[in-house]
Amino acid sequence: MTLDAVWPELSDLLGDRVTRSKGELKAHGGSESYFPLTPPDAVAYPETTQEVSALMKLCSAHGVPVVGWGAGTSLEGQAQAFSGGIVVDFARMNRILEVSQGDMDARVQPGLTREALNDDLRATGLFFPVDPGANASIGGMASTRASGTTAVRYGTMRDNVLGLEVVLADGRIIRTGTRARKSSAGYDLTGLFVGAEGTLGLITELTLRLHGQPEAITSAVCAFDTIGDAVRAVTDAIQMGIPMARIEFVDAATVNVFNSYARAGMDEVPHLLIEFHGSANSVQEDAESFGEIVADHNGRGFKWAADAEERKALWTLRHNAYWAILQERPGTRAVVTDICVPISRLAEAVEATQEDLEAHGIRGPILGHVGDGNFHAILLFDPNDSAELERVKQAADRLVRRALEMGGTATGEHGIGVGKKPFMASEHGEAWAVMGALKAALDPDNLLNPGKLVPDA
Amino acid sequence: MTLDAVWPELSDLLGDRVTRSKGELKAHGGSESYFPLTPPDAVAYPETTQEVSALMKLCSAHGVPVVGWGAGTSLEGQAQAFSGGIVVDFARMNRILEVSQGDMDARVQPGLTREALNDDLRATGLFFPVDPGANASIGGMASTRASGTTAVRYGTMRDNVLGLEVVLADGRIIRTGTRARKSSAGYDLTGLFVGAEGTLGLITELTLRLHGQPEAITSAVCAFDTIGDAVRAVTDAIQMGIPMARIEFVDAATVNVFNSYARAGMDEVPHLLIEFHGSANSVQEDAESFGEIVADHNGRGFKWAADAEERKALWTLRHNAYWAILQERPGTRAVVTDICVPISRLAEAVEATQEDLEAHGIRGPILGHVGDGNFHAILLFDPNDSAELERVKQAADRLVRRALEMGGTATGEHGIGVGKKPFMASEHGEAWAVMGALKAALDPDNLLNPGKLVPDA
Repeated sequence: MTLDAVWPELSDLLGDRVTRSKGELKAHGGSESYFPLTPPDAVAYPETTQEVSALMKLCSAHGVPVVGWGAGTSLEGQAQAFSGGIVVDFARMNRILEVSQGDMDARVQPGLTREALNDDLRATGLFFPVDPGANASIGGMASTRASGTTAVRYGTMRDNVLGLEVVLADGRIIRTGTRARKSSAGYDLTGLFVGAEGTLGLITELTLRLHGQPEAITSAVCAFDTIGDAVRAVTDAIQMGIPMARIEFVDAATVNVFNSYARAGMDEVPHLLIEFHGSANSVQEDAESFGEIVADHNGRGFKWAADAEERKALWTLRHNAYWAILQERPGTRAVVTDICVPISRLAEAVEATQEDLEAHGIRGPILGHVGDGNFHAILLFDPNDSAELERVKQAADRLVRRALEMGGTATGEHGIGVGKKPFMASEHGEAWAVMGALKAALDPDNLLNPGKLVPDA
Repeated sequence: MTLDAVWPELSDLLGDRVTRSKGELKAHGGSESYFPLTPPDAVAYPETTQEVSALMKLCSAHGVPVVGWGAGTSLEGQAQAFSGGIVVDFARMNRILEVSQGDMDARVQPGLTREALNDDLRATGLFFPVDPGANASIGGMASTRASGTTAVRYGTMRDNVLGLEVVLADGRIIRTGTRARKSSAGYDLTGLFVGAEGTLGLITELTLRLHGQPEAITSAVCAFDTIGDAVRAVTDAIQMGIPMARIEFVDAATVNVFNSYARAGMDEVPHLLIEFHGSANSVQEDAESFGEIVADHNGRGFKWAADAEERKALWTLRHNAYWAILQERPGTRAVVTDICVPISRLAEAVEATQEDLEAHGIRGPILGHVGDGNFHAILLFDPNDSAELERVKQAADRLVRRALEMGGTATGEHGIGVGKKPFMASEHGEAWAVMGALKAALDPDNLLNPGKLVPDA
């Protein structure tokens, strides 16, 4: 291992902020996902962009792989050092550098978590809307092009990152984008690094677009007898231009988990969870229009959250769904699927998934961001039963194939890492080779997060 | 010239759809801008992606430059063949291939114009919102990352192109993106080709995001004594989350042109032109909220368009502003600036521009997309007076330098071409070299629109 060659200089650079302690290596060797533990050779905690640049220059000179680490919440093994090398943990680069209320933007460091950011913004009347559920780091969210429950209204990380500071494979520091709201000045490098999963550079600073906290918020749940009815209600609402801030689907199996986990007392049928943001009048008008659409599609049991407390309870239920589903069977793990399809095909995709899982005896509650056509099946398996894992992986594979046939994508928001890499050739064809050519141009020695996202060199 | 080498095969491929007639060469040698005429060596009119691919393979084998051509409305010389070679005119690839009402998207060919698209969509209840003023081609709009009056609400081409079909320099055909609303499946190639000005590939098909035609629309003008008041009214409205569909600024000099050109009968002071899209109730509520903000900032003379006719007249006035300004002095040409700054600096940027132009005796009415922080000064010069052109260019240069000092960009929506290339190093620093590396990776022989956007090889 070439780490020995860089170690003296790396120690000189970072002192006790670079470590080979077993505990640290182990803590940076796993993820929330089902991939085996892969401890890196060292973990570094830089505090400045200059330190990241110096580290990259050392690693570049000695051919040592480098993998960025945010909050460790990625689901496709993105932050795991499968080829060894150094994990760069951005925990000490977690500051808010500047908030401009006038321009509604903020400069932050990559290790900042989205909850810490929003806590800090509370008094400003602004907020950062992208909400993947987990309390992920902003740098990690940018790197996986995260989105979540609010993307239907506020967009994904692609839409909410205005600019970046990036350290390249050779240690050069570049800035992408500007603080202007739009630009036509050359290639969209910001958009290229967002979603690149640390394979093209390490993000050391982000300029984020903020939004005004809405004057009024209303949330509700309502029940449907069939998935088709629920989905059609949503597509009607989208086409009528009703501005939904959140519109989430949960299937009967997920409601069953809500009931056992949190005594939600809901009918065990498909539900929609919805939220409107706006003025007091507009959210009421939106809610009424949506209510009419729901009635047209045999929706029932419409229940509005009476106050902020109830609203919070509703979304906590949704955000904890993944953990609640995992708790159902002690010691269980899950393969989380993440397909996204054209909305016209969504009901069909969800129904086909349910039939498939049932036919193969797989427990897999379904929930998702119905306004985007994106849903997750949480495919449970016993980690000691490799045959079950294999069966689950095959189901996940069929799910993706169906999504691609429908004009969709293997992943709406979790990214590729290693988990979705087997689908890249099918989804992109020759365009995957183009991604490889871009990678080779910016990281010719394949040191940045090797083995992820692009074709093997 | 190497064209002779490809000519026989090119003629075999396209028949009389490739030409060297003087008239055609001349018609494809200029633009609406101030650049000198540069006729290409040939003009080709492909009808299919396969023909574009075959043409690219021929040109690649013989080292012949290729420049894409849409409607010829670009402002920075993007479609001019400064190094000779073949202009590929997409006039015969101008069809709408598919409209999906359920998914609110459309597949179109690059030569389609935005007006033709919207004419066709009228009966569907959907529309394509990006509106740069000129009746540009969709492929050209994507290539320059165009936006215009509606970007404040609906985004730019970056936000409204879901996927592309692209022919690469070596003739390979790739597809980027999917029909899903979002994806985290690898590098955002769609975003890379949008705004690349044909330097990385030729766009042969686009999947566009459509939007629902609003139920109600209201438009108004109002007057302000100072630019600062007008801009501050807009920033307040943005921070309050009032959803403006259009919010345009015109200075006193532009109003003066409106009055002489179209007898607009407006006070010759700064004005805002505004439009709201939504339900009948919401547009009224928005209009009332906006009215209160305007009053807070000493706005006056609020005049709502009574009906669709009056609304159309208002926006025709705005869209014809460029031509009306040019008509002011017969035979005049213009350097059109396009800076975009953080909104908090917009009033300062406009005022500094006016002072600069006055100090240097340059006639330059100012108008722009105030909600994005983007404005244009139309700097007039006599084409026979090279000293005046030099003076105007120097003023444009100072304007960009000020924008960059304010954290802005040299171009909000017109792109780089050759006109803004001198500013790329200042705006992007080392990141400009990264753009060059990406270009070299995808077009190693520098055949696609050579001389534009990236550093000279």
